[in-house]
Amino acid sequence: MHAVGSRLYEQVAGRVRDQILRRTYRPGDRLPSVRELSRAYKISITTVLDAYRLLEDQGYIHPRPQSGHYVRARPAAQAAEPERTKPRMEPAEFRREVLLEQISQDGRAPGVTSLAFAIPNPALRPIGKLNRITTQILRDNPHEAYGYMDSSGFAPLKEQIAQRLFQAGCAVSPNDVVITNGCQEALVLALQACCKPGSVVAVESPCYHGVLLATRLAGLRAIEIETRSREGMCIHKLEESIVEAYGTSRQIQAVMLSTNFGNPLGGQLSDVDKQRLVTLCQRYGVAVVEDDIYGDLGFDDARPSVAKAYDDSDTVLLCSSFSKTLASGMRIGWVINAKHRPSIERAKYAMNICASSLPQLVIAEFLGNGGYDYYLRRARKAHESNVRGMSDAVCRYFPEGTKITRPLGGFVLWAELPQQVNTLALYGKTVEKGVTFTPGMLFSAHDQYRNFLRINASRWDSEIERAIATIGQCARSIAG
Amino acid sequence: MHAVGSRLYEQVAGRVRDQILRRTYRPGDRLPSVRELSRAYKISITTVLDAYRLLEDQGYIHPRPQSGHYVRARPAAQAAEPERTKPRMEPAEFRREVLLEQISQDGRAPGVTSLAFAIPNPALRPIGKLNRITTQILRDNPHEAYGYMDSSGFAPLKEQIAQRLFQAGCAVSPNDVVITNGCQEALVLALQACCKPGSVVAVESPCYHGVLLATRLAGLRAIEIETRSREGMCIHKLEESIVEAYGTSRQIQAVMLSTNFGNPLGGQLSDVDKQRLVTLCQRYGVAVVEDDIYGDLGFDDARPSVAKAYDDSDTVLLCSSFSKTLASGMRIGWVINAKHRPSIERAKYAMNICASSLPQLVIAEFLGNGGYDYYLRRARKAHESNVRGMSDAVCRYFPEGTKITRPLGGFVLWAELPQQVNTLALYGKTVEKGVTFTPGMLFSAHDQYRNFLRINASRWDSEIERAIATIGQCARSIAG
Repeated sequence: MHAVGSRLYEQVAGRVRDQILRRTYRPGDRLPSVRELSRAYKISITTVLDAYRLLEDQGYIHPRPQSGHYVRARPAAQAAEPERTKPRMEPAEFRREVLLEQISQDGRAPGVTSLAFAIPNPALRPIGKLNRITTQILRDNPHEAYGYMDSSGFAPLKEQIAQRLFQAGCAVSPNDVVITNGCQEALVLALQACCKPGSVVAVESPCYHGVLLATRLAGLRAIEIETRSREGMCIHKLEESIVEAYGTSRQIQAVMLSTNFGNPLGGQLSDVDKQRLVTLCQRYGVAVVEDDIYGDLGFDDARPSVAKAYDDSDTVLLCSSFSKTLASGMRIGWVINAKHRPSIERAKYAMNICASSLPQLVIAEFLGNGGYDYYLRRARKAHESNVRGMSDAVCRYFPEGTKITRPLGGFVLWAELPQQVNTLALYGKTVEKGVTFTPGMLFSAHDQYRNFLRINASRWDSEIERAIATIGQCARSIAG
Repeated sequence: MHAVGSRLYEQVAGRVRDQILRRTYRPGDRLPSVRELSRAYKISITTVLDAYRLLEDQGYIHPRPQSGHYVRARPAAQAAEPERTKPRMEPAEFRREVLLEQISQDGRAPGVTSLAFAIPNPALRPIGKLNRITTQILRDNPHEAYGYMDSSGFAPLKEQIAQRLFQAGCAVSPNDVVITNGCQEALVLALQACCKPGSVVAVESPCYHGVLLATRLAGLRAIEIETRSREGMCIHKLEESIVEAYGTSRQIQAVMLSTNFGNPLGGQLSDVDKQRLVTLCQRYGVAVVEDDIYGDLGFDDARPSVAKAYDDSDTVLLCSSFSKTLASGMRIGWVINAKHRPSIERAKYAMNICASSLPQLVIAEFLGNGGYDYYLRRARKAHESNVRGMSDAVCRYFPEGTKITRPLGGFVLWAELPQQVNTLALYGKTVEKGVTFTPGMLFSAHDQYRNFLRINASRWDSEIERAIATIGQCARSIAG
């Protein structure tokens, strides 16, 4: 072995890793002992120990006391996915804003690598094009850009949104679209339109904390429904809950769920399940608040359908935004429903009159001139590759027994760590080392998901890898 | 009389008008009869009749049957102001959105002159400067411009807002500022923070409909308090209401009012009244939601104080925005209160995560480099002149007995027409002639202000004068 630009122990580690990747040594196999390797390659015991320590840190191997080093049994593509949980069935109120704010604040400290929030990769933003469009609109049409907009939004933008949905198999009228300040506001307006305060709304479990906050803001009680990593909410569990509570004081008035690439699981309801969902909810008079914010970000090139496409009775209030695709800070989302449109538009007016004008003009122009699809193809490819890179790293660095989702779209990962790893305690350790993530307890109003965490996988580079290594190292020190 | 570029009857009318303006003929005086004038100036009876009809249309004179023509008794500076009303004291719910939407829709039809909404004069916007700042930020700092903002807003903008308030005599910390999507959202967040659903909140009477809608969105009941045209809400009437309901199920939890240049009256609480308001509300544990959206638009050059300046116990939640000054479509407002800041910031996050990023950066830069004060001086002068122009025109064209506010700032006018002029019926007539305004019934949850109307006086030009003439003509035809 010759030293070529890297240290000897790194070269040794590289050779061993190659053999693992070539499956010369398979998961569970015992590697050559330190002494054997030292003799065979005429290198010092220390060098071999350093090499094995590096591979251990990188998650490729693990030592067993009095036995030697073994190949870890979890390359990403074969790692188990998190267990389905059995959420508690009584409605509960989410009261974890203080923790959420702390995490947000921690992430803003200088030098911190934040994996906590589902923030899109800024490098993917089509900045040049957006800037050019903005400058042109400000020059040619400043009064529309700076003046009040209709409460329901800019008509050409509503048309573009309806056109894109039509291409995805869902026919809606632009008149039924109300433009909102991002998807969060769309969810709040949708809930307020279809539920009376005090009502019960069914949500996914684990559930994005923004959804839990929206239900609370609307004065509702959330009941959490079992949700599968890849297939989305269990429709038969939803049905059980709806039927069981029907006619009682806990009757479910609405279900709010992601149909495509939900947060944090990244799964997707099949078309059959989307249809079953709509039929079920029609039958019991339950409104469906469909969150499609990640719908454009599937790794498969075909745009998936939405539950709204199977809805002939206006049961579904379809919500989405451009926050995960074009630009979060533009705060442009929408909610679509013919029946509730008048009351949603009124509530929008009472809440904040209208969404910002300029971003509506800019996005309408961007969608209209065909740049969006080109951009989305690039973004989807990048997300898929980044999610895979991070997923592999989680498998390498996290403690044995860690399970990880295999999302079909979007850019977040949800990991289940060994039972003894309380991810809130883990957070306390990683934040001291300058790394943040979202502990699992923020994804339920109950005391659940204590050994889970969510990480933003929209970026993948050496800084992020170090952050994953840090989380993994801290987790292993807790796991013992 | 010689024809010089205008028709003979117009020249005759001009001469007569000059005599009226020179007070040769004073209000109430009988003018020369048609026959006298015809003889004296050797012109036809028809020409004199045409001249008198023109002066009648312009509101200078009015005919009395079998008696002749008289000078109208209402030059603007001497016109009466609207009567104080005695609003009904029980809380009520505002349910007039359909009418509001109709008026908004009518105003968008081509060729219509809308005086209905309090929209600032677009010609006053500092477009060149805002465009240059925007372009520069997009070039130098695109990731901040397109990315998520903190829920509480852009820190330099919060500092600018606190600095400007400090210059106006009100010391607040930038940390207590939460940036919102315009003042309407600030009012909603403030109400939600300090009132439980079902509570009673005191508002002005007449009351801007956005305030009535905000109370309803927050699930509150509004009680309307007598408000004077020039001196704002009657604090002793507020006190009576607070004391009378104290300890009952109608106990008042908050009062929401304009302290400077309220909409629609344009009056202003004196500093003494601002102080009395705060002391009163402190004593009875009533929160004050102070709407200062027009505070920068007083016709007097000195920036008036706010009630918040007299508040040492965090009783006041101060709300405002840049929608009436810089640009309504940017949707940037704020709410300030130390005690409620955490819950307001949480509600803001749950509602729509954060306000748009780019406008926050742009406004912070605009305020920081000193352009705002220069701009405000120009805008205030223009508003004052436009408001006077329109006010005079109302006096000329509207039926005898019309009363009109003399606002101290802002850019709306509130007129009381003769009892028999139902302004909703009047609206039906003017909209057919392409002119809209806001009927008075939109300024109360009770059946009040049926012979009142509000008009936007931010512009003053020949199109607007024609619109005022149209309203006046229709009103006179109803008044008989």
